[in-house]
Amino acid sequence: MKKLIILVLLFFPLYIHAQTNLQPYLTLEDATRISDAAEAKSKAEGWNMVIVVLDAGGHMISLRKMDGVQIGSIDVALGKAKTAVYFKRPTKVFEDAMKTEGGGRIATLPNAVAIEGGLPIVKDGIVVGAIGISGASSAQDGIAAAAGLAAY
Amino acid sequence: MKKLIILVLLFFPLYIHAQTNLQPYLTLEDATRISDAAEAKSKAEGWNMVIVVLDAGGHMISLRKMDGVQIGSIDVALGKAKTAVYFKRPTKVFEDAMKTEGGGRIATLPNAVAIEGGLPIVKDGIVVGAIGISGASSAQDGIAAAAGLAAY
Amino acid sequence: MKKLIILVLLFFPLYIHAQTNLQPYLTLEDATRISDAAEAKSKAEGWNMVIVVLDAGGHMISLRKMDGVQIGSIDVALGKAKTAVYFKRPTKVFEDAMKTEGGGRIATLPNAVAIEGGLPIVKDGIVVGAIGISGASSAQDGIAAAAGLAAY
Amino acid sequence: MKKLIILVLLFFPLYIHAQTNLQPYLTLEDATRISDAAEAKSKAEGWNMVIVVLDAGGHMISLRKMDGVQIGSIDVALGKAKTAVYFKRPTKVFEDAMKTEGGGRIATLPNAVAIEGGLPIVKDGIVVGAIGISGASSAQDGIAAAAGLAAY
Repeated sequence: MKKLIILVLLFFPLYIHAQTNLQPYLTLEDATRISDAAEAKSKAEGWNMVIVVLDAGGHMISLRKMDGVQIGSIDVALGKAKTAVYFKRPTKVFEDAMKTEGGGRIATLPNAVAIEGGLPIVKDGIVVGAIGISGASSAQDGIAAAAGLAAY
Repeated sequence: MKKLIILVLLFFPLYIHAQTNLQPYLTLEDATRISDAAEAKSKAEGWNMVIVVLDAGGHMISLRKMDGVQIGSIDVALGKAKTAVYFKRPTKVFEDAMKTEGGGRIATLPNAVAIEGGLPIVKDGIVVGAIGISGASSAQDGIAAAAGLAAY
Repeated sequence: MKKLIILVLLFFPLYIHAQTNLQPYLTLEDATRISDAAEAKSKAEGWNMVIVVLDAGGHMISLRKMDGVQIGSIDVALGKAKTAVYFKRPTKVFEDAMKTEGGGRIATLPNAVAIEGGLPIVKDGIVVGAIGISGASSAQDGIAAAAGLAAY
Repeated sequence: MKKLIILVLLFFPLYIHAQTNLQPYLTLEDATRISDAAEAKSKAEGWNMVIVVLDAGGHMISLRKMDGVQIGSIDVALGKAKTAVYFKRPTKVFEDAMKTEGGGRIATLPNAVAIEGGLPIVKDGIVVGAIGISGASSAQDGIAAAAGLAAY
């Protein structure tokens, strides 16, 4: 009896995705926890950032802009997060691809910002959203994004 | 034992949404079946239509434009479907609201097309997408959309 | 002597704007306090909302989307806040104007969302930003926005 | 006599375009047959794709998104097809041009996606539309697009 329940719970995610067309999603609480961690890391390092969390459809769950950040970083952070959720990969993958022969083609890819700082948020193998950060160097943006993701 | 399984299956949707943050979604097969039904109804009535099905994030799963339809109907069908999924209601609700005193404010609502022919697609109380149709009169667009939805 | 100090303090803001070209601005801490108050009021009333705070240039300082809110409310909340800061008035002023004869012209006004729920944030007679809320009825959106503003 | 008929048939299309201002166009049936062939090839190879067919004006006739494809592929497939019809050439031509000296200028060309997977659809020497595919590697996108075109 107990075994059955455990078995049922164990195969839940698999069953859910395959049989009943269900998928996980992010809550505002998730987004806030992720953003708090990214902001804490940024403050510890002395970086001012825009921190964005999007849902699986690329829509905003939360955004916060620390004081003094250039306004251009708002759309950059949004663009990085959108890229990560639209293409299910870190924006750094595109940044690296730009450095290869003919990599300039990435600049013609609709909705792709090829600069580090955007990371998909994944649960049970499903992309549930993304975090995008802009304000410091792209490498620093990436570090803050990773710190945020670690809190999910 | 059998009872337990039934009970578990019965409370699945509730458990899923509340406890594990899972939600249902539309497949291409769903979208095709819905669109086929809408097209069949349109053909039977002698209407030429653009038929769009969007997912829960407002992104296209499928679009088909019957021969001879004005190209303006493409964005109209897309806009109606987007309205239905963005605002979780039939576009006719906005069309009717436009007729009330001060209803003109609806024309300033971002992403709202206030013309019949857009319907949300709902599963287990969750909006999983929308159908949008344009090509004939708005009332006829609405009839075709309802015929599509009935096939879900 | 005391009188002089009071007098000086009284005319200080005016002096600052006129003589030194300084103006007050919103911080992320301000935006968070305002949003927390709006969210607390919404929760107390059982409303799910998108809560946006913009700066004096109409750029986002913060956004949060409570769970379950229709995605259409994101652009609506943004639009309301933008209207309030672009036109330095509550969006309800435009909503009321829509009800007068020829009021439909408001629908042609660029960047004007004529629906209650957007309020300018003012300090020392200067518009420093705006709050925009969407998710419930427009009257309820307005109540939540006012609750947010009261915390500034 | 027979010779004359052959001659007439041979010069007919040319005659039509020059004398009567007529041009061939794609039907939904054409678009569906093309898309079915592209989808069949994709399934056989285990690729998930977005498949778009546009008309001679760059407007959608049909779109289908196979399950599990990243949402970013929707705009990429649309962009590739638009490029193919706007510039009357395969998108691979631009991808190759990007690799030449100064090729980065292609990234400034309006409406040009320089990534393989977009092909013009030609009848009697006239571009009647385009197919655009995205979801796998760009080379695989190109193979699926060619498979679709072969069914026209």
